[in-house]
Amino acid sequence: MAKLNSLDDLFLHTLKDILYAEKQALKAMGKMSKQASSDKLKEAIEGHREQSQTQIERLEQVFEMIDKTPRGAKCEAILGIIEEAEELMEDAQEDEVRDAAIIAAQQAVEHYEIARYGTLCAYAKQLGHDKAAELLHETLKEEEATDKAMTKLAKSSINRQAA
Amino acid sequence: MAKLNSLDDLFLHTLKDILYAEKQALKAMGKMSKQASSDKLKEAIEGHREQSQTQIERLEQVFEMIDKTPRGAKCEAILGIIEEAEELMEDAQEDEVRDAAIIAAQQAVEHYEIARYGTLCAYAKQLGHDKAAELLHETLKEEEATDKAMTKLAKSSINRQAA
Repeated sequence: MAKLNSLDDLFLHTLKDILYAEKQALKAMGKMSKQASSDKLKEAIEGHREQSQTQIERLEQVFEMIDKTPRGAKCEAILGIIEEAEELMEDAQEDEVRDAAIIAAQQAVEHYEIARYGTLCAYAKQLGHDKAAELLHETLKEEEATDKAMTKLAKSSINRQAA
Repeated sequence: MAKLNSLDDLFLHTLKDILYAEKQALKAMGKMSKQASSDKLKEAIEGHREQSQTQIERLEQVFEMIDKTPRGAKCEAILGIIEEAEELMEDAQEDEVRDAAIIAAQQAVEHYEIARYGTLCAYAKQLGHDKAAELLHETLKEEEATDKAMTKLAKSSINRQAA
């Protein structure tokens, strides 16, 4: 990783981190959607996959706004979160248990993204990148909404079926 | 990892995951507190370290409530989050930039914990472990409060000093 001399450097590094994370999460969601049994869960993941593509485009716009090439930086955090998700899916012996595990995994991904987009919004505002801050905030709100939707799905049906 | 046949198995596995994560986070916070320059940031991390010890005790109580031995299970997610935190601290060339990076790292840890405690609360309620759900909810509220306190600290001073 490059040396970090200023908040501008931290902003750029965090953008690269979340760009990589979004792309990895997109692939992971593809696997989770295939392995999900509940139609509602499949639908929710597919909906968020589409949204994630828009979120990646927004990130690319933010890179452009600060005159940088959109490029990801390996993010060990998302790789760890996805590794756990894959283990859980593999070890689940019943479809209903796997569905509950998929929701938990998806929420761990969302919370990682919520943390990073929250940080990015704060950096962008501090640095006077107001338009970038708006775009990042739009994504942050979507991630929070996805997390809430997953909680609702778990509590309304998936966890009961797994119990 | 053991095979997961039911929500009980998922509950136990997630408890082991977060117990490991809490212990790793405790060590990481020790390093972050040492490397932090701002007194307010040091104080906030130290305060949360003490809280984390209580949170670990609560987890041990939950294990006892379901007649299991408190034992952690390697959590790749927290290891990835901490690896990133250590890289950021190392690469930061200025104290103020390092402080901003430490806040971001701490918030990534908090959000991982928020995701897992949220899941655990939902599982505990579904499984009728009401007393365990209460304890887990108490910790969840503390993690959310720590995240908010870190946001406030970043926005009120640390990010401006790093810019």
